Formats: sequence, C-alpha cells, structure tokens
Amino acid sequence: MNGYPPAHAADLTRSESSAARIDRRPDDRGLTVHHWVEQERRRSHMIVRVVSLADLTGWRFDPDSGTISHHTGRFFSIDGLDVTIPDRAVPHWSQPIIHQSEVGILGILVKRLDGSTYCLMQAKAEPGNRNGIQVSPTVQATRSNYSGVHGGKPVPYLAYFQAPGRQRVLADVRQSEQGAWFYRKRNRNVVIEVDDDVEAQDGFRWLPVAQVHRLLRFDDLVNMDARTVLSCLPLGGPELLGPVDGEQSDPFRSALARSYRPGTHARHTTGEILNWLTNVRARAEVTAAPVPLASLPDWHRTDDRISHRSGHFFDIVGVDVRAGNREVGGWQQPMLRAHGVGVSAFLVNRLDGVLHVLAHARVEPGLVDVAELAPTVQYTPDNFPYLPREAQPLFLDHVLDATPEQIRFDAVLSEEGGRFFDTRCRYLIIETDEPLGHPDYRWMTLHQFTELLRHSYYVNVQARSLLACLNSLVQP
Amino acid sequence: MNGYPPAHAADLTRSESSAARIDRRPDDRGLTVHHWVEQERRRSHMIVRVVSLADLTGWRFDPDSGTISHHTGRFFSIDGLDVTIPDRAVPHWSQPIIHQSEVGILGILVKRLDGSTYCLMQAKAEPGNRNGIQVSPTVQATRSNYSGVHGGKPVPYLAYFQAPGRQRVLADVRQSEQGAWFYRKRNRNVVIEVDDDVEAQDGFRWLPVAQVHRLLRFDDLVNMDARTVLSCLPLGGPELLGPVDGEQSDPFRSALARSYRPGTHARHTTGEILNWLTNVRARAEVTAAPVPLASLPDWHRTDDRISHRSGHFFDIVGVDVRAGNREVGGWQQPMLRAHGVGVSAFLVNRLDGVLHVLAHARVEPGLVDVAELAPTVQYTPDNFPYLPREAQPLFLDHVLDATPEQIRFDAVLSEEGGRFFDTRCRYLIIETDEPLGHPDYRWMTLHQFTELLRHSYYVNVQARSLLACLNSLVQP
Repeated sequence: MNGYPPAHAADLTRSESSAARIDRRPDDRGLTVHHWVEQERRRSHMIVRVVSLADLTGWRFDPDSGTISHHTGRFFSIDGLDVTIPDRAVPHWSQPIIHQSEVGILGILVKRLDGSTYCLMQAKAEPGNRNGIQVSPTVQATRSNYSGVHGGKPVPYLAYFQAPGRQRVLADVRQSEQGAWFYRKRNRNVVIEVDDDVEAQDGFRWLPVAQVHRLLRFDDLVNMDARTVLSCLPLGGPELLGPVDGEQSDPFRSALARSYRPGTHARHTTGEILNWLTNVRARAEVTAAPVPLASLPDWHRTDDRISHRSGHFFDIVGVDVRAGNREVGGWQQPMLRAHGVGVSAFLVNRLDGVLHVLAHARVEPGLVDVAELAPTVQYTPDNFPYLPREAQPLFLDHVLDATPEQIRFDAVLSEEGGRFFDTRCRYLIIETDEPLGHPDYRWMTLHQFTELLRHSYYVNVQARSLLACLNSLVQP
Repeated sequence: MNGYPPAHAADLTRSESSAARIDRRPDDRGLTVHHWVEQERRRSHMIVRVVSLADLTGWRFDPDSGTISHHTGRFFSIDGLDVTIPDRAVPHWSQPIIHQSEVGILGILVKRLDGSTYCLMQAKAEPGNRNGIQVSPTVQATRSNYSGVHGGKPVPYLAYFQAPGRQRVLADVRQSEQGAWFYRKRNRNVVIEVDDDVEAQDGFRWLPVAQVHRLLRFDDLVNMDARTVLSCLPLGGPELLGPVDGEQSDPFRSALARSYRPGTHARHTTGEILNWLTNVRARAEVTAAPVPLASLPDWHRTDDRISHRSGHFFDIVGVDVRAGNREVGGWQQPMLRAHGVGVSAFLVNRLDGVLHVLAHARVEPGLVDVAELAPTVQYTPDNFPYLPREAQPLFLDHVLDATPEQIRFDAVLSEEGGRFFDTRCRYLIIETDEPLGHPDYRWMTLHQFTELLRHSYYVNVQARSLLACLNSLVQP
C-alpha cells in the first residue's frame, strides 16, 4: 500500500497517471523526478486513517465554547467565526476557522552553478496529501515543529533560515494563507542563496529551478508551500528561468517575458494600484468576530466530524497518522476536509504586447488586512446551487466558456497537506482579448506583482500559486 | 479667553512665545501664518472643560465589562488589553486601550504653481489641543464624522479624497497611530494634487510646502495628523522642498539631501532591511488580548477618571466641548490624557556622506503587525522610576548627553487633539558620529523610508513625525 490511506486507492491511480507524464530527463543524480518521488513513496511509511473526532489523542474540546486545541496550547486550534460583509449576495454567515498564530518557516535553499539555478527540494509526506508524498520546500516547519514541542527529530537545513545574514537572502516575507479557512495565519516565505556545497540528505534533491516549475503542470505533485515560496522569488521571470527560447516566434511567451521586466509599460502605475487597493480596503466594512465553535447555528458536531447542515463547504475531521520517517513516529490531529475541488483562475491579456493579469481585490474573513489580490475567479463549484446564483464570481463565464486554445495552464494541485485533508483546487490560466473591467479588479503586470510580493498582505495564496504556474509558462 | 480651557492659561504663555518666533514672511494673502492662526484662535469659540467621566452624554459604560462606547456604536470605544511580551524588562501588563476600527481620512490637497508646491492647510480646533487651534490637514475626518453620524455640517473638500482617479494621487496609504494607546487603529493618509484653482474657504490657507515644514520647528503648532500626512509625501526631499541653497557649504544638509535620492549608497539594501524586520516580527511572541476594562488589576475607575494605581502612564478623562464652528455645536467624549511629556528622538549619522537614521524595530501591543520602525529612542521620562531601570530605552544616553551642536531639531509637538487631551511629545533629531549597532536597530536612508511609506505597517506615527521634522531641515 506504500503507506497511503486505503480510502485513497482509487485516486492514486489518477495521480500515478499524472506522475507518469513527468518529464523524464535525469536530474544531477541521474534519477528522474518521477522515479525519485516514486522511490520516496515506496520508502514512506505514513499511514493515515480518518478516525473519530471525539477521541483525538492530545487534543481537547473546551466543554463550554467547543474550541478544539492541543493539550500543550501550541500548534493550532479550531474556533468559530462570525462574519459580516455588507452588500454581498451572502452578507452574513458563521463558520469554524483554524487559528494558528505561530509564524512558521517555508524555505527554499537555492544555489547557482554554471549559470543555472538549483533549488533544494524535499519529497515530503503530509497526512492530507492524497498521494502521500509531494515535492516540497527545503524546510516546512511550524514553530512548534522546530522548537521541539512534540519531541521529534531536528528539522534538516533549518539553521540556514534561522541565522539571517550569513547567506544571501533572496526573499523573506510573511504571507497569508487561505483567508476562508485560517484566521490571520502567516507563514514566513524565505529563499536563501548559498555559496557552499550543501549536500542533499536522504529525501532531498537539488533540482534546476526551471524543472521545479515544469513539475507544476502535473496534478498533485508540487505542494502548496513550495508554490508560495516560488512565487516570492524576486527573479520570478526569465532572469531566473534562463533565456527564453524562440521568444520572438511565440507572441504569448514574448508578452509573458516582457511582463516580468521592470519599466515595461503597465496599464496602471503601481501608485494607482496601491490607491485602488487602499480604497477597496478602506471602504469595506468587514466584521469577523471570533465566537464559540459550539454556538455556530448551521454547523453540527457529531463524534465523527463537524459539518455544515447543507453538507457543503467543508468538514472538520480527525485523522490518525503513523509515520516512519517524520520528526515523530505518530500522532493524531483534526483536519479541514473541503467538499468539492476549488477553482482558481487568472484571466490574462496581452495589452500593448505585455501580458497583464486581471487581479481581484478580494475580501476574505481571515485575512489580516481586509482584502488581498486574488485570482480573477476563485470559488468552489460544488457550493452551488446551495449558495445563491448572485454569489457566483464575476467573469465566471470567461472561465467556463474558454476554448482549449485559450487555456494556457490547467492542473489540479493540492492545498497544504498538514491542515487540509484531500483538499484540492484546479488552477487555470486563461487568455482573453477582451478589455474586461470592474471597480474591484485591475489589470497588472508580473513585475508589479513581484514588487508587491516583497511585502506582506498583498497577494493571497491562491494567486501566489497561479503566479508560480505562470512562471512555468516561460519555457516551452 | 479665546475659548481655551482656563486650566491651560499658564501653558498658553509658553505657546504664545513659541508662536511669536514664527517666520513672519507673508503667505499668498499677505498674512503671516502667525497672524492667521492667532486670528482663527480669536474667532474660535471652542470651550473645553474636564467633566465627570461617569455622566458623559451620549456614552455608555457596559455594566459587566466596563467598556466605554458611544450610544450609536460608532466613533470609538475604550476597553482593556492584556499584554505579554516575553524577554522584556516588563514582560506583562494590562491597560485601557482605544478601539477605533473605522478608517478615517487624513488628507492634504497640494497644487503646483510657478515651480512651487502649495498645501491647503486648515486652522483647526481640537478639544485636546492646549492652544485650541493648530495647523492641520485639508481634511481630517473619521468615517463617523463624514458619514454624518452626529448630524453635523459636511466636511469641506472631502469630495477630492473620496473620488479617487479624478486627480493625481501622490500618496494613499493606511498608517498606524500610537500602538501604546490605540488597538489596531489605521487612518488613511492621502495627498491629492489638483490642477484646478481650488479656493481656500474660511479657516483654510494655501501655504508653500517649505513653509509648512518650517512651522514644524515651533512648539504645538502643526498637528499630528498634518505631520503624518507630510511624512507620506513621496517627494519628501529636495525635489518637493525646492533646490537646496548652499548645499555644498553645509555638510549636514548636503548629506541630508543625498539621503532622499534613489540609488544613493545605503548601509543596508532594502532587501536586507525587510529581512531584518521580518525576522524581528517572526521571532516576537507578543500576546495582546482584549480583556474587560473593569477587570484590569492596576487600574481604578472613579467618577472622574480611570487611572493607574501608580499615578503614572495616562488617565481616561471626560471632556465637555462647546464649539461654534465645528461640524456640530457641542458634545462630550472620553479622552486619554498622558502623564508627562514623551520623548521621541532619531539618532542620525553621516555614513559615507549620506545621512542615515537609526531605526528601531519596536514592538507595540496595539500595532496590526507586531513591530514597526520607530524612533531610536521613544519613551516617557515621567514613567521612571516607577518602571525598572532596565526598561529604559537603548541609546538613551546618546540623547540625554547630546551637546547643543548635536541637536539638529528640538520641538514639543502635540499628539492628536481629538483623542488625546493635552498630550505632547518632545521630538528630537540628534547627530552622532558613533557607529552604533544592535540586532533590533538598523541605519536607514530617507529614501528607504520613502519606499516603505508607500505601504502600511512599516513606520510608526512617532517616526513619521520625525521624518516630517527631518524634511524641515533641508532648508536653512
């Protein structure tokens, strides 16, 4: 069984077939990434079972509020949130939400060698991954992980990210995660360039950065944490990914490459973008107030799970994890399991020969700062028709009616497997030639995204995944 | 009495003598600013009296929690905050704090004419100002003000700031205010450049931007809101303030002018500054939890005020305001009255001929994002010796022992007069030639501050005041 939960056997087939499409060119150890991930899957001994939520070892339910928390008070907790966003199709609701106030580290070590850039990637098992192991950052650790709360093994390579100043820091910024499921969560996205020879330990590989980006095109292969760190690389464009072959002959890639360059003509100045976003944020009267988990009117708790009365949105479930090569041998934890695969799509357009992305200033209840730049369309089809038709995203028709020629990127990728169980999203990049516009949307270049990604609270995690996916289109 | 509270008569003398030092060059209407402010003071009919906190008209005390809030639920409320910051000389305390979740607008209209830039400034009375009227931004309004919650007059010039896109937006960014006294307060700092002729209404004057900056050198004349907006002007340096006379002959001003220029050699790159600040923010384990105001162990409420048992820090008092020319004729409200004059000081140093400022990454409990860049030294002397000696700020000796030649700027300026009663701070800019260093401090250029001031949560309000004061030193 290779250590995956039996419930996933059917899905594994699909995942295997995706994996079979992986570029088989050998990496610097003569192993294709495909073989490497397969090998690691065979070696992995993680066994994940969905178990009763009521009896999770190490976790307690507050008898009054219903709050679920770890007995140490660390890791994370699950509580209720009451949300009001006036002038919405659904202006008020309440829901469970994950509180994780600790700032974890998501870090990739990079090294330049003979004109190419390599990333130290990890084949890491997470309990929520349907296929067990995915290509992950060098380091992916909560503070509770690396400060040894659970008494596990030390985190490899952590020292490179904890001693700033000893190496070149290419990126270091705290970024939000899913604002619909986390309350004000922030993780530190770090890219450190090393000069020394750093050996890849067991379970790690140095991979060319262009290859890591190519892997994004395969379903469920590069994990969310790797995607968000890749999006924060300041040289997200051709400078990092190497020269663009045949740039002149492909107008799309040519427009994409120009979009990364500073000084390229953008539809709006960065000052205008900031003015627009400040205005959206100042106008929005969002109330997101913590309330007791036990008091949520539409959510029911059984011994098995917490779920919405409609059966939509998501469940909170319990899982039991047995793992051979993790920091600790086994544990239990609650996880969020979404119903239905999400959709996150960027509409892109060549404006004056420069690729522009239609960004949405999207309000989400768990964000630290009201609204962030999000995909043009971000929603979960399965929540309709429970949700009213008016709640459907703007520009959805442009996604649903896209012709195959318009679809530049299409892959189903997993959300973070440490908190989300079998929770996935279809990431799409769709080209349009229509000059779409709306007060809550703006056309932006990739250079403008790069500028804003140096700072917290500008780009949401789904948009960051899509920006990493756009990077993957620079090379044919 | 010119409408100031009688209790302030003694202090007025000092303020008058400061005002008498104002540059008497006429503005474009042939009136000196000194005469204009004096004239407005004579016309003002604001009478402020400290009254019992228990009987404030329009305000209610929650019988259980003690929360003080307006009967409409708007404006602001006062609640308790429990703060833990490990590894501090004082690692835990609790205190009253002001909640004001509405984002207000602080806006200045500017106009370029014959190569000079003019700002439309207002002579505005605020109840907390010891001298009644101070030079204020064009617009200074909470959302409750301008949405007419109190049924007052419309706010002049507000339309210029509410219809973005019609004029040139030079700055538009939400910035924090006092993180020791406000819980996550943000105001929108906006600078709009107009091409039309905009007439100065009664109580307003178009003043050259260099003159507004010169006024900063006088005690209690330019209010906090004006200072913070001025600091967000993207051309804070010589470009806006005009050519620097005799730049070559004065090494200090020469180094100051160079510090504003992009591309000048800075001690650290902006990437290094961001890495450092991310690290400080990620490491800090700050807990700032709202608690009932009635439950604070060291704070006592009488009918007159809420105060700390030591008599230090601040009181919450009630005031009665009668005003002839405000949006409404009269009102009552609670205010925060600090004990003792604060000190905010920047140490500055010419490094390789470029003026650098020693910024402190300072944790404050009410900040949205853990820590912001703050003055080198920011403290209230009167709180010692109640606070332990170890709680004294680093580098304090460099401020206390500064020789007159080292002191480049020294003025006592008022904090915001709408929430703070007679609450002031001494702003100092002190030159040093010592290469001071500490992990929580970094030498930064003014260009680097300008870059970060485009974004929220980087520079605290005291540092922004000091940056406006630094602007005032460009001209002799």
